[in-house]
Amino acid sequence: MALSQVEVLPNGLTLAVEERPWTPGVALQLLLPVGAVNDPEGMEGAASLLEGWLWKGAGSRDARALADAFDELGVRRASSSALEHTTFTAQFLAEKLEAVLLLFADLLLRPHLPTQALEAVRQVALQELASLEDQPPKKMFAALRRAVFLSNHGRDPSGNKAHLESISAEALREDFARRYAPRGAILALAGGITFERAKEAVLNALGAWSGSGAGYPPIELSPPHAIHLEQNTAQVQIGLIYPDVSFDHPEFYSARLAAQVLSGGSSSRLFTEVREKRGLVYSVYAVPNGVKGYSYLTAYAGTTPERAEETLRVMQAEIARLSEGVREEELERTKIGLRASLVMQEESSRLQVASITRDLYMMGRVRTLEEIEAQIAAVDLTRINRYLAANPYQNPWIATLGPRKLVAA
Amino acid sequence: MALSQVEVLPNGLTLAVEERPWTPGVALQLLLPVGAVNDPEGMEGAASLLEGWLWKGAGSRDARALADAFDELGVRRASSSALEHTTFTAQFLAEKLEAVLLLFADLLLRPHLPTQALEAVRQVALQELASLEDQPPKKMFAALRRAVFLSNHGRDPSGNKAHLESISAEALREDFARRYAPRGAILALAGGITFERAKEAVLNALGAWSGSGAGYPPIELSPPHAIHLEQNTAQVQIGLIYPDVSFDHPEFYSARLAAQVLSGGSSSRLFTEVREKRGLVYSVYAVPNGVKGYSYLTAYAGTTPERAEETLRVMQAEIARLSEGVREEELERTKIGLRASLVMQEESSRLQVASITRDLYMMGRVRTLEEIEAQIAAVDLTRINRYLAANPYQNPWIATLGPRKLVAA
Repeated sequence: MALSQVEVLPNGLTLAVEERPWTPGVALQLLLPVGAVNDPEGMEGAASLLEGWLWKGAGSRDARALADAFDELGVRRASSSALEHTTFTAQFLAEKLEAVLLLFADLLLRPHLPTQALEAVRQVALQELASLEDQPPKKMFAALRRAVFLSNHGRDPSGNKAHLESISAEALREDFARRYAPRGAILALAGGITFERAKEAVLNALGAWSGSGAGYPPIELSPPHAIHLEQNTAQVQIGLIYPDVSFDHPEFYSARLAAQVLSGGSSSRLFTEVREKRGLVYSVYAVPNGVKGYSYLTAYAGTTPERAEETLRVMQAEIARLSEGVREEELERTKIGLRASLVMQEESSRLQVASITRDLYMMGRVRTLEEIEAQIAAVDLTRINRYLAANPYQNPWIATLGPRKLVAA
Repeated sequence: MALSQVEVLPNGLTLAVEERPWTPGVALQLLLPVGAVNDPEGMEGAASLLEGWLWKGAGSRDARALADAFDELGVRRASSSALEHTTFTAQFLAEKLEAVLLLFADLLLRPHLPTQALEAVRQVALQELASLEDQPPKKMFAALRRAVFLSNHGRDPSGNKAHLESISAEALREDFARRYAPRGAILALAGGITFERAKEAVLNALGAWSGSGAGYPPIELSPPHAIHLEQNTAQVQIGLIYPDVSFDHPEFYSARLAAQVLSGGSSSRLFTEVREKRGLVYSVYAVPNGVKGYSYLTAYAGTTPERAEETLRVMQAEIARLSEGVREEELERTKIGLRASLVMQEESSRLQVASITRDLYMMGRVRTLEEIEAQIAAVDLTRINRYLAANPYQNPWIATLGPRKLVAA
């Protein structure tokens, strides 16, 4: 198994490299602490606009030449801004590493941010925001997060329409200068490269980058409550958020295993009770989720208005029932499934860099496969059931979206 | 690079194995020629119902024990039915190969198909169909395919509501006996196994399986025309389908490269002209697509009602402009990008089995990486531009969905 080496470079950028000498490609993921959560007041959507605007020319290249340069290196790339981060991902052949990093250095250190290109960027962001209206599950979850957080963590990463329309080029350039910085940024590389080569290439390309970035605001929660969005949809969207334990909690792996019993495989409780036995939904799941400093369990189902009440009731009952404990064979199956997933995930450089950056962001270090396996093995039936009895999943925030109201708010 | 070995077993099942001794896992994909296109008349949705019903018990196990058995082996699995196929995928550790194949043998040869479980399966299928209403892009594409094909190829894989509600258990069991058969089925395995071991395990599990399946109806096209679906959405959904050349055409790779110039990377024409320069949309693309025996190019955009006409006009103009040829540097970039994608795709067993089954289904053989690279290298500027001049992309079928009509039908 490949191990990742991690080093914080003098300018504050965290570099992680996983050497995978058997692969011809390299996967790159760069996480910048620039997201909706630290968009300046009155500028919700600034991170989204910046991410689009960056591509409008950098270093010696205009927008067209910049896109061409990435394509000429055979780079598959994507970038997006979300609640806590702006993320850049790329996959390319190992021999192109140095050239690809120099292009990213232009993008991050020397973008043109030309005024005349901002209008098209703004229009794309407004189109993205408008498209949420036609995606009921996404719209419901945006409202649910708004209901959970009093702090900026409840913001919609797509931004605010009035803000998007009014943010000026000057304000965005200032915001770029302040938030795009190496301190707090995480760059992970996995593939057919060595740590030494990667470090040299990164120092050469990004060593001169400086700045300390924006940081994150403290988390504030609202008391659990239920909301309903009325919309003339065919299905009712149901979302639930339950408080959960974080990475640093001693029973973190007990909670993870419990979530798997609930929704981890074809014999999981939610799938069996809500879909397979009752045919209430096409899709139902629960998944561990969260922001840095606050973890939660998200549950989802979409169903017809006639079946929505029963669906919500069965979901809540199954989730609450975890406090009564899990069965020995459920725990064993779950452990086997998690272990197989972990081993198979190792095959993909792309999944590995995503997992490395997540670990570094959430915990400040990268867990090894061995560590995770040992932690999972250490959770026995007594331990997980004691944990579940003492920490029942209860008092969720609830959001529904559809033609009818289901829950008394 | 791993090579796949292919053998048609005595019962007609095609087995393909790619030995990847460096990986601990195995990816499996089984393609059965059971889809909406050969659903019996009056039973549209039968393939979808069967795929769900199969899991309700098989061999010595009831539904619950069957799901448990897969989970106990640490199998990550999925199954779905689509227009031309029912597909089963699984990923598991190599040591579980024999046990996993025996479970699939129960599923395919000895399902219980119990009457009392059909109702829940039917409800899930109806829920899936209903959820299309809330997914405007999917709904638009379903209507567009219905407009293109006069034959069953225009059917919606989710089925027909009245049919789903009325199909009887007896009719479904007969349909299962007729269509679930090894002839025409394709099983691909890639991972830490040898061909010999895989063949022995497959013969042991599935050697007794027999039958010749249903085959496919001939393709019938309608003349190109435009349709509009009126729906009160925030965005207008735009879909275009252009006739294209198939795998067996001598200029197949010229067409593939042209599609990449159009929509293959960040410097591609559609992305540049529709999104980056004009900010008309958040998402726009064109992608080669098709059914066995008929290939087409699908183009998509979603935009606000005010910008829909311009978006449609610019898309059509860019696609038509291919007939004027591509530039040398566009062709070169595209070749580099395709080659990098191919090399990096090799890393994933899961992507490899998907590509193997697709090749076997569409062409009856598996292309090697070397073959594809040589074919791409052989397309020079003169050749691709001669092809594009002689075969302009024109006369599309057009579908729009949204509050306003755009195109005179």
